[in-house]
Amino acid sequence: MTDTIAEILAAHRAGTTTPAQTIARCYQRIRAHGDPAIFITLRDEADAVAEAVALAAKDPSLPLYGVPVAVKDNIDVAGLPTTAACPAFAYQPTEDSTAVARLRAAGAIVVGKTNLDQFATGLVGVRSPYGIPRNAMRADLVPGGSSSGSAVAVGAGLVPLSLGTDTAGSGRVPAMLNNIIGLKPSLGLISSTGLVPACRTLDCISVFALTVDDAVTALRVLGHPDASDAYSRERPVGALTAMPDGLKLGVPRQSQLQFFGDKQAEQAFDDALKRCGKLGAALIEVDIEPLYETARLLYEGPWVAERYLAIRELIDTQPEAVHPVTRQITLGGKTVSAADTFAALYRLHALRKIADKTFAGFDALVLPTAPTTYTVEQVLADPIALNSRLGTYTNFVNLLDLCGLAVPASIGADGLPFGITLLAPGGRDAELASIGRIFHADTALPLGAIGKPQPPLAAVPAAAKTDEIDIAVVGAHLSGMALNGELTALDGRLAYATSTAPDYKLYALSGTVPPKPGMLRVAPGAGAAIALEVWTLSASAFGRFVAGIPQPLSIGTITLKDGAKVKGFLVEPAALEGARDITHFGGWRAYMADLAKAG
Amino acid sequence: MTDTIAEILAAHRAGTTTPAQTIARCYQRIRAHGDPAIFITLRDEADAVAEAVALAAKDPSLPLYGVPVAVKDNIDVAGLPTTAACPAFAYQPTEDSTAVARLRAAGAIVVGKTNLDQFATGLVGVRSPYGIPRNAMRADLVPGGSSSGSAVAVGAGLVPLSLGTDTAGSGRVPAMLNNIIGLKPSLGLISSTGLVPACRTLDCISVFALTVDDAVTALRVLGHPDASDAYSRERPVGALTAMPDGLKLGVPRQSQLQFFGDKQAEQAFDDALKRCGKLGAALIEVDIEPLYETARLLYEGPWVAERYLAIRELIDTQPEAVHPVTRQITLGGKTVSAADTFAALYRLHALRKIADKTFAGFDALVLPTAPTTYTVEQVLADPIALNSRLGTYTNFVNLLDLCGLAVPASIGADGLPFGITLLAPGGRDAELASIGRIFHADTALPLGAIGKPQPPLAAVPAAAKTDEIDIAVVGAHLSGMALNGELTALDGRLAYATSTAPDYKLYALSGTVPPKPGMLRVAPGAGAAIALEVWTLSASAFGRFVAGIPQPLSIGTITLKDGAKVKGFLVEPAALEGARDITHFGGWRAYMADLAKAG
Repeated sequence: MTDTIAEILAAHRAGTTTPAQTIARCYQRIRAHGDPAIFITLRDEADAVAEAVALAAKDPSLPLYGVPVAVKDNIDVAGLPTTAACPAFAYQPTEDSTAVARLRAAGAIVVGKTNLDQFATGLVGVRSPYGIPRNAMRADLVPGGSSSGSAVAVGAGLVPLSLGTDTAGSGRVPAMLNNIIGLKPSLGLISSTGLVPACRTLDCISVFALTVDDAVTALRVLGHPDASDAYSRERPVGALTAMPDGLKLGVPRQSQLQFFGDKQAEQAFDDALKRCGKLGAALIEVDIEPLYETARLLYEGPWVAERYLAIRELIDTQPEAVHPVTRQITLGGKTVSAADTFAALYRLHALRKIADKTFAGFDALVLPTAPTTYTVEQVLADPIALNSRLGTYTNFVNLLDLCGLAVPASIGADGLPFGITLLAPGGRDAELASIGRIFHADTALPLGAIGKPQPPLAAVPAAAKTDEIDIAVVGAHLSGMALNGELTALDGRLAYATSTAPDYKLYALSGTVPPKPGMLRVAPGAGAAIALEVWTLSASAFGRFVAGIPQPLSIGTITLKDGAKVKGFLVEPAALEGARDITHFGGWRAYMADLAKAG
Repeated sequence: MTDTIAEILAAHRAGTTTPAQTIARCYQRIRAHGDPAIFITLRDEADAVAEAVALAAKDPSLPLYGVPVAVKDNIDVAGLPTTAACPAFAYQPTEDSTAVARLRAAGAIVVGKTNLDQFATGLVGVRSPYGIPRNAMRADLVPGGSSSGSAVAVGAGLVPLSLGTDTAGSGRVPAMLNNIIGLKPSLGLISSTGLVPACRTLDCISVFALTVDDAVTALRVLGHPDASDAYSRERPVGALTAMPDGLKLGVPRQSQLQFFGDKQAEQAFDDALKRCGKLGAALIEVDIEPLYETARLLYEGPWVAERYLAIRELIDTQPEAVHPVTRQITLGGKTVSAADTFAALYRLHALRKIADKTFAGFDALVLPTAPTTYTVEQVLADPIALNSRLGTYTNFVNLLDLCGLAVPASIGADGLPFGITLLAPGGRDAELASIGRIFHADTALPLGAIGKPQPPLAAVPAAAKTDEIDIAVVGAHLSGMALNGELTALDGRLAYATSTAPDYKLYALSGTVPPKPGMLRVAPGAGAAIALEVWTLSASAFGRFVAGIPQPLSIGTITLKDGAKVKGFLVEPAALEGARDITHFGGWRAYMADLAKAG
């Protein structure tokens, strides 16, 4: 069986399954699942299969070659209506949204448009005239929202990939409720062109998938600057890496955690933190009150006016066309003043500065994705208050330009899903994924609700700051020596000390102040192992450092004793006249100590 | 006579004048000038002189050692009331604003608080219950505003330095009207802590001085991150340089210029552009309609609600305490909605993207500082419309996070001053100053209204993109050769072609693909001049490029035929076994051509 994107791609490329077969099977599953509330518009099957057949003429190495995808119905797909779960608002887009166009260009095939809390306002998935999608894990639970249909479609195994949106948690809360991955990218990473706005300054298109690696595969396709979206930003998606050494995870103070009486969720979060510790992370307690204050700012502040602005014409002229709960919330934005808006923007600006400092202290913050779960019955009885509670750990994220990754953490004995969300400053999507994929694998949880284990994790390179360059120093730049300050002034840090392969000669150059060595590579084995230190610099600092190295020194490639190669100091042989061969000291430090002793 | 900061500092450091003498002379000038509308509060002279006397215990190398400074009366100075030109608003600050504290720590001495358009709302300088400061150039003209007193105080030679503020042009328009320099720094460069807000998201403290170099001296003291101001930003002030080669200046399309019938100003702007051309700048025509649209957004949009928010309590409870024109404008901000605010923020976001692209095409944009001048009589007769016209070329600047430098350009036969403003994206303050100082010197205009010529320009280093590094390539990285793409992929550009000093040998290394040369420095004169190309890379690209150079090549320092030194390729001598000495070809290109011929 092929369920994940990785499995489907492998099967298509191996030729064991054709894209057309995959699409046909996808429609079979949708029919078999039998929940009419998941899709608002299901695409005509023959159309989708024809598109899959046409893929035969294309390159199977396309990153989503023949992968079925469901699209939340506030994102345009040419030829299918966009309803935002409001029939009176519906329109027929003639062009794909940028996100959908990028998926299609990568070989993905849209199978339909999914249900949502109307106008993406809500975290519950019950605020839609198109019905309530059945939670994939437990039929009595809310599916979560606002991206209800997209999350359930992946959780139930109908599609391996779907697009949601996320303004205050709509891409994360339903991920937890359906035991799947919810990737909320950095603001502006995925273009919002062709998305019905909720809060334009905060909206993100988000990704649901069964594994973190699948979500990242989709993010690499989707994440691209788009000149047609003023909020699009150049934010390269970095590389997935193995678990970084010395990983530091922020966790809330115990007293700041809120579970609204859900002891099982409280225990599940504690267990998840233990798992993080077991995986090698240091846990650092963090004051998250500024995050709560930011969340209150969203809830009580002017941003709801963006929701009003987005549907002003409709709600002012046909208020009855809007879902009653959505209407009540949205009209709250009509009367907010510009002055109060600016006051809130000032406070947000200050809170962002505080959050920047907080987040500088660790690699990622770990929070529950939601504090608890609710049944449909509970939410219908108390639609606004319980919805708010579900956003406890998500509301502030977009206001602070954080990226987030919701990952399943456990499933209770009663089948209630629980998940954690990793958060970091915008731009660090791949770093979160690198942590999240290892956490998820370690849980050994099944994929969504489809009763199948996770596939083994693909190998990825060791963690490395891609913008950093190591440099071997052998003389006055060594720790504590005369020029070491040049490295520390460039924020360089000592990575490790080692020595060269036994192929180098070391000279004390004549007439240099401070005294400097020159190292020269000679025939293999004809020299000695010379002690050195390897320092790490940013690419820019490395460039400036190299630019400042005077003749006769140069920066070449040094072979270390273990055969590894690293950039490092060499000398021009033309400068060795009058220089003393000090190779037998085995290093500059030993030579200088000897000089001092000789006095 | 010592009038500029540079002159005053030189005299203090030489001991020919004491700071106390300078302060005493400053008060004499203020008394002699006899305009009570310039200062709202003049500091007690004995206090100021005592502070100057106390400076004797301090280091004369302090960057503003004993320099008198006037401070706009919406910026806190401990011990002097802050009025913002509204008696009912006045309060007694117990602490200096951050900007004033930094000036004082640098040795500057505050002599008083200057008049302004009330709450910094206006560009005319006539909207104050404390009178209208007399324009330093022509008594019938408006002084310009809102920083009227600060600009006149410098223009009239009462102080060599003053602080203004600038939200929509208040630090630039009065500079032109008083024939002085007005430096509007990048947003967040100077802390706004202790400033009465006008529009907090747009406000800047600005600098008035007689010369560009003086303004930069002050900016270096003032520009510093401040944790107490959420809008403060880390924006280092770069170095002043000589006029950069290949300078490109943007100029508006002729049809987009507006002078409101002022033929003399129109001619003066044309003359200023000719001067720019004569100084070596290429003039590039630019569509400035997006800037005008941004200005309209400020004028018609929600930002006036920030002004309302700043004085909400006062204007709601004691409207009669506010100047009638200021009141009318400010109350316009009371009724703006949050929805309209967000709509304007969306549009501004899009306009910023457009402006980013526009400004990428040149080093700085040159505009008139103001389209014309008006008399006090004219403005009092039509207070709002004429004020708006004065902001034609300034209103959009802060919304787009540009930095600006207003520089005198000419004085008409009738004594009417005219000036230009240089604009660039935020962070390029020093680049604007490097251009503006040469332009100003070339005008040979007198300093302000004090009838004294400009001092000669101090020498500064040649223009160099500080973040760029040159690298000499001698082989496969030459233009058109196999590895040249590595340089272009890093946005490298060819700077020039030359050859080495005759001290190098060139080898064709054995067994390299593509074929590669190795260059080795030998004893002076024992080699030949080897042809090379010098390419320019950013520091970061240079770092990455160097990091990718494989053994046995390294990057050292090459001596060129003119004796100049540049980073470039060298080879490790250990790799020369089996290499062919091709020094006699004089370069890799000639060798390769010969190979091809032999082919």
